[in-house]
Amino acid sequence: MALVGFLSDFGLKDNFVGVVKAVILKINPSVKIVDISHEVRPQDILEASFILKSSFKFFPKGTIFLTVVDPGVGSKRKAIIVKTKDFYFVSPDNGLLSLVLKDEPPLKIIEITNDKYFLKPVSFTFQARDIFAPVAGYLSKGEPLNNFGISISHYKTLDIPSPLIKKNILEGEIIYIDHFGNLVTNIDERAFRFFTKDKKFKIKLKNFFIDKLSLNYAEAENLRPIALIDSFGYLEISLKENNASKVLKLKKGDKIKVELL
Amino acid sequence: MALVGFLSDFGLKDNFVGVVKAVILKINPSVKIVDISHEVRPQDILEASFILKSSFKFFPKGTIFLTVVDPGVGSKRKAIIVKTKDFYFVSPDNGLLSLVLKDEPPLKIIEITNDKYFLKPVSFTFQARDIFAPVAGYLSKGEPLNNFGISISHYKTLDIPSPLIKKNILEGEIIYIDHFGNLVTNIDERAFRFFTKDKKFKIKLKNFFIDKLSLNYAEAENLRPIALIDSFGYLEISLKENNASKVLKLKKGDKIKVELL
Amino acid sequence: MALVGFLSDFGLKDNFVGVVKAVILKINPSVKIVDISHEVRPQDILEASFILKSSFKFFPKGTIFLTVVDPGVGSKRKAIIVKTKDFYFVSPDNGLLSLVLKDEPPLKIIEITNDKYFLKPVSFTFQARDIFAPVAGYLSKGEPLNNFGISISHYKTLDIPSPLIKKNILEGEIIYIDHFGNLVTNIDERAFRFFTKDKKFKIKLKNFFIDKLSLNYAEAENLRPIALIDSFGYLEISLKENNASKVLKLKKGDKIKVELL
Repeated sequence: MALVGFLSDFGLKDNFVGVVKAVILKINPSVKIVDISHEVRPQDILEASFILKSSFKFFPKGTIFLTVVDPGVGSKRKAIIVKTKDFYFVSPDNGLLSLVLKDEPPLKIIEITNDKYFLKPVSFTFQARDIFAPVAGYLSKGEPLNNFGISISHYKTLDIPSPLIKKNILEGEIIYIDHFGNLVTNIDERAFRFFTKDKKFKIKLKNFFIDKLSLNYAEAENLRPIALIDSFGYLEISLKENNASKVLKLKKGDKIKVELL
Repeated sequence: MALVGFLSDFGLKDNFVGVVKAVILKINPSVKIVDISHEVRPQDILEASFILKSSFKFFPKGTIFLTVVDPGVGSKRKAIIVKTKDFYFVSPDNGLLSLVLKDEPPLKIIEITNDKYFLKPVSFTFQARDIFAPVAGYLSKGEPLNNFGISISHYKTLDIPSPLIKKNILEGEIIYIDHFGNLVTNIDERAFRFFTKDKKFKIKLKNFFIDKLSLNYAEAENLRPIALIDSFGYLEISLKENNASKVLKLKKGDKIKVELL
Repeated sequence: MALVGFLSDFGLKDNFVGVVKAVILKINPSVKIVDISHEVRPQDILEASFILKSSFKFFPKGTIFLTVVDPGVGSKRKAIIVKTKDFYFVSPDNGLLSLVLKDEPPLKIIEITNDKYFLKPVSFTFQARDIFAPVAGYLSKGEPLNNFGISISHYKTLDIPSPLIKKNILEGEIIYIDHFGNLVTNIDERAFRFFTKDKKFKIKLKNFFIDKLSLNYAEAENLRPIALIDSFGYLEISLKENNASKVLKLKKGDKIKVELL
């Protein structure tokens, strides 16, 4: 049974998500659709890229990811299908796939050009419904990849904020704030361990510092922020049973420094 | 495989949506349920009617729409099933279906009276669970329409704000604001084209005007509102990568005028 | 076909809910998953317990409930499977199941210890993904209960605020506020009827009182709060087409008194 993983910035107020699912199910009534999130910050391709990277490995082999955060909809940006060893990705070619494709290299990239598969008339503003959904639908029914368009060799990448080492400081930033207010940084476990080895360190944020890694949220004491490696492998700042972002007044883009002592 | 399209104002905080789905699946375990939206403004029948009208055509033939925005729950308003050429609608009879049934005329209307299908005791406040869900469930299993109640010939309609022509002005209003803050008006493409033909025009809102139609959001320049025909066929006002409703301080019910020059 | 009912405080912004579903479907592609709610107040075990109690009876027999509100994740709290006559519950052992298990006594309790079923490495912060989801997945495929761990005889219970009788007053409190702003109290229909019998009464809240029970929301007059027994059997305060919580400035924990006249 085919599975579609669906990620967008459409929100759940409008009918956008439901209509996309209807279009897919009209083409392939037996497909299953799992929502990854539809609350990506509007037009925030980087946030979508990060969420996708933290999600795709948990899905069954053969999953088709339909990922639509698409500020360029109706303009000349390409629509693509990317095949990797285990998955398919159907997406605007705007960098959304760049983080994933670092981990999971593309075996084939198709620019979607065959309008035989489109819903017509194709709107200029809702191509998730008119192009991406029907393509995902036919793909899930086993339509060969080459039928959708022409093979290309490049895809757009994003400039991704990477942590930097400056002498005895590893500097990163907050790239995501989750539902609980936990602050996720762009420093992953490997970078953190490589930099700190077994030396002592201070993790500095705006107006406080933390001098050790905790294992879990339950370890925290009231109102004392903790740092830990989260379940997706990133350094994260958290506050016991509280929203760290609100209480500590920290937001996306704020700096974090790991300083060796 | 039967499909139910589910629209309500229940929100996703409570267990209302999940319990309705449980009731349907208990009756017909093989049915698929697609959420259209559950974030209709509480008790806003007109908004639900508009969302349903913009959605139903994208669903497979035979879809059963379960549409519950029901401020009169437990009072004497009727519960109905409407059969059209391609679809079924299960709904309180409060006007929610009026926009759809203009496009998709009713072939049969059943007032739901046969309490054999109800969950008992029938509550006075959650009939989506006790009446509408089980009826949709049995209908999806192929139960004949006539078994649910008696055939009637009328259904309730809503007073819908229509655009008006006053000399050289076409006056409409904002009827919906989507997740991105785009302002959807009640002026559809046909009315707009019929009125403007190939003459020049100004689209006037509270404190600005727009003198052309754009094709897509990507055409917009920063902070200059654009007008376009949206993917559901309505005249829409939008702001590049911004929430037009918040930035321009415009809300549902605000007037829009198309003036011929 | 197996059904999983999924309740959590994960929200819908992040990928948590989608990733948990992916893990389940990777193990058992034919399972159906119904969301009960993911908007439980973060870490509010009592709220989750109340929502679960109001939901589980509407699901098909054999449903596996995956219920994760887990402030103690990664600490020593147990992970358990509880089998009752009709259902299975997979949950952290933190009291979340206590309200349900009053109505639906446990036939068997398993402490989940067999890491053969876990996703590895098991994270300290997201055990819904690494422990609870795979266990629910294998359980839904028919894996025998005893394989998951060891049989135990106790589970954690919560201190639940119960209504008290003081002379001619029945005192309860608001325990839940729904999407519409209705105020749900901990006084259930049985307690209310037993206390009031056919005597006259006043229901007193902060700055107003109500002297009768209504049947449905439609009975209400503008801006006059009503009291009714809601669809889950609790005494509820409501305001016609308005958010009672906001307008009346009442919140969770506020007292309600039923006074006999």
